[in-house]
Amino acid sequence: MNKTHYELIILGSGPAGLAAGLYAARARIDHLLIEKGAAGGQVLLTDWVDNYPGFPDGLTGFELAEKMEAHARRFGLNTLTANVVSMDLLQTPKQLTLEDGEQLSCNALIICSGARPQRLGIPGEIEFSGKGVSYCATCDAPFYRDMHVAVVGGGNTAVQEASHLTKFASQVTLIHRRDSLRATKVVQERAFANNKIDFIWDSQVIAIEGGKGVERLRLRDTAGKETTLAVDGIFILIGVIPNNEMLPLQLLKAEDGGFIPTDTETRTAVPGVFAAGDIRSKEMRQIVNAAGEGATAVLAAEYYLNNLTP
Amino acid sequence: MNKTHYELIILGSGPAGLAAGLYAARARIDHLLIEKGAAGGQVLLTDWVDNYPGFPDGLTGFELAEKMEAHARRFGLNTLTANVVSMDLLQTPKQLTLEDGEQLSCNALIICSGARPQRLGIPGEIEFSGKGVSYCATCDAPFYRDMHVAVVGGGNTAVQEASHLTKFASQVTLIHRRDSLRATKVVQERAFANNKIDFIWDSQVIAIEGGKGVERLRLRDTAGKETTLAVDGIFILIGVIPNNEMLPLQLLKAEDGGFIPTDTETRTAVPGVFAAGDIRSKEMRQIVNAAGEGATAVLAAEYYLNNLTP
Repeated sequence: MNKTHYELIILGSGPAGLAAGLYAARARIDHLLIEKGAAGGQVLLTDWVDNYPGFPDGLTGFELAEKMEAHARRFGLNTLTANVVSMDLLQTPKQLTLEDGEQLSCNALIICSGARPQRLGIPGEIEFSGKGVSYCATCDAPFYRDMHVAVVGGGNTAVQEASHLTKFASQVTLIHRRDSLRATKVVQERAFANNKIDFIWDSQVIAIEGGKGVERLRLRDTAGKETTLAVDGIFILIGVIPNNEMLPLQLLKAEDGGFIPTDTETRTAVPGVFAAGDIRSKEMRQIVNAAGEGATAVLAAEYYLNNLTP
Repeated sequence: MNKTHYELIILGSGPAGLAAGLYAARARIDHLLIEKGAAGGQVLLTDWVDNYPGFPDGLTGFELAEKMEAHARRFGLNTLTANVVSMDLLQTPKQLTLEDGEQLSCNALIICSGARPQRLGIPGEIEFSGKGVSYCATCDAPFYRDMHVAVVGGGNTAVQEASHLTKFASQVTLIHRRDSLRATKVVQERAFANNKIDFIWDSQVIAIEGGKGVERLRLRDTAGKETTLAVDGIFILIGVIPNNEMLPLQLLKAEDGGFIPTDTETRTAVPGVFAAGDIRSKEMRQIVNAAGEGATAVLAAEYYLNNLTP
C-alpha cells in the first residue's frame, strides 16, 4: 500500500471492470482495479446466465464472475478492495479519495461502477431473487415458457417487456400502482391489444411468497383491500439506479437519471476519463456489451496516456 | 427457401453476427442470419484466443467460433449460406440481392460483414499465419516474450504497436518500404527513443520462411539487394480492409477507408440499418466488443421494429 499513483485506475469489478482489467493487465499498463466487494458486480446476483456468447449451455452468474476474474488475474491484475467516496478529475493527476481518507491518483480513469435495479423493498423480494423474481426481461423471459408472470411498473420498459414476455409466458399480468400507464402511446396500445396481457390497476405488491420459487403475490389496492395473485414469476421493472454516488456528475454531464454519456469509444466529457458498462447512458445493459466496452475503454485510455488523438 | 421476407436480417457470422443471432433468436424475433461460409469470421483464422473474457486458459479460434455458433443455434438461429451482392436500403421493405439473383427482404438489417487485414501477398504469409505471422499486436504481443519480432508498416498502428511490443519482445525490428514513417510525430519520437526498436528502411519483406514457426524473413531493398533477417515472429500492420463490397457506401456515409459510422447504439445513417463488429468505424477491433455490439444492435433493431424512439 505504498504505491499511490497509477497510470490507469479502473473503478468497479463487474464485467466491464474485469474486461478492462484483463486488457490493461495483459497490455502491461501500470494499473489498479478498485473493487468494493467480491468481483462480478450484478452478475453475482444472477442465478443463471444464458446469453453470454460462448457458453452454449449457460452457467451461473457466480461461475461466470469467477472465470472473468481468474482470466484477468492470470495476466497480473492488480486490485484493491476499497470504497471510493469522492474524486477530483480536474487536477493533474486525477485524485480519488477512499473512505478511510487515503488518496490515490491516476492519469486515466475508467469508471465501471455499474447500476442496480430499483427494488420494491418488500418481503420475499431478496429471498426469491433469481428464483422467480427478475429485474431483466431480456435476460430471463425465456425461462418462463407457458407460465403466468406478473410485471410491476407502468413506464416504457415495463409495458414493452410485458409484450415481449407474451412470446414465452402464457399469461402476463401487469400490476401498476396508478390507474394509467406512463409508457408512450404506441407501447400502451400494443399491450392493450395483446390478449395474453391483463391489468391490475391502482395496486401495489406488498409481499412475494412461495416455496422453492415464487408462487403468489400479495396485493393491496388504493382502497386498502388485500388480495392474492398466483404467479410463477414477477418482473420488477420500475427503474435502474446508477452507482454514481462518488462521481462528479455535473462535470461528467450526467443525464438520464444520473448515467454517464460517452462517445462510441467510451470517452466521457472529461479528458482521460472513460466509462464502460451499466453506468453508461445507454439502452441495453447486458454482460457482453459491458465487457466489450471495458475492453474498448482500455484502448481509448492507452491512446490518451500516449498523448494520441486516436 | 420459400420464405423471402424477415423482420430482421443479420449479415455475417463472425462474433458480432453470432451474438446478434443469439439475441435475436432468443428474443424470438423473425430473423435470418446470412453467412458466406463457415460461422466464426476472422476468429476461425485465429490460432489462439487469449483475451475473450471468461476463458481464463484461452482457447482456439475454432473452438470459440464453434461455441458461439452452438449457443445461437440452441435458441433457434436461422441461417442461410449465401453471398449478398447488393442491396436497396431505401425501399420498404429493404431489399437484398443474392449472387444467384434471388431477392430477400427485411424491415431491419444488422450489418456484421467484418473486415480483414491487408496482407503482403508473399510466400509463407498464409502458411505461417498464427504460427509467427500476426495482424494484431493487441491480440498476440504477449506470445512473444523475450523474442525478436519484426513489424511491417510505417503508419500510426505499426509504429505504435512496435512500441507496445517492446513490453514483451526483447527486440523489435520495424521494416518500412520508404525512408521515413507516416505515423504522427509523437508516435515516431517514442519509437526512435526506444532502444529495443531498430529500423530497416527502404526495404520490403519478400518471403517468410521457417519450420514449425517463423524463423527468418527475406528482405529486398530499393536497390534490389536481398538479405535475410532472423526473427521469431512478424506483425504485418499495413491496414485493415472492410468487407463492404455489397454495401451502399454513400448512403451509409462510409468513412475511414470504407468503414460504417454508427452512434453508440449501433444505428447507422439509414433508419432501420445497424452495424456491429469490425465493419464499424472504430478504434479497437476485438472479439468481445464485436459480440457486445451485436447484442446491442438487436435491441436497437427491436426498438426500430416496434416504432419506438429510441
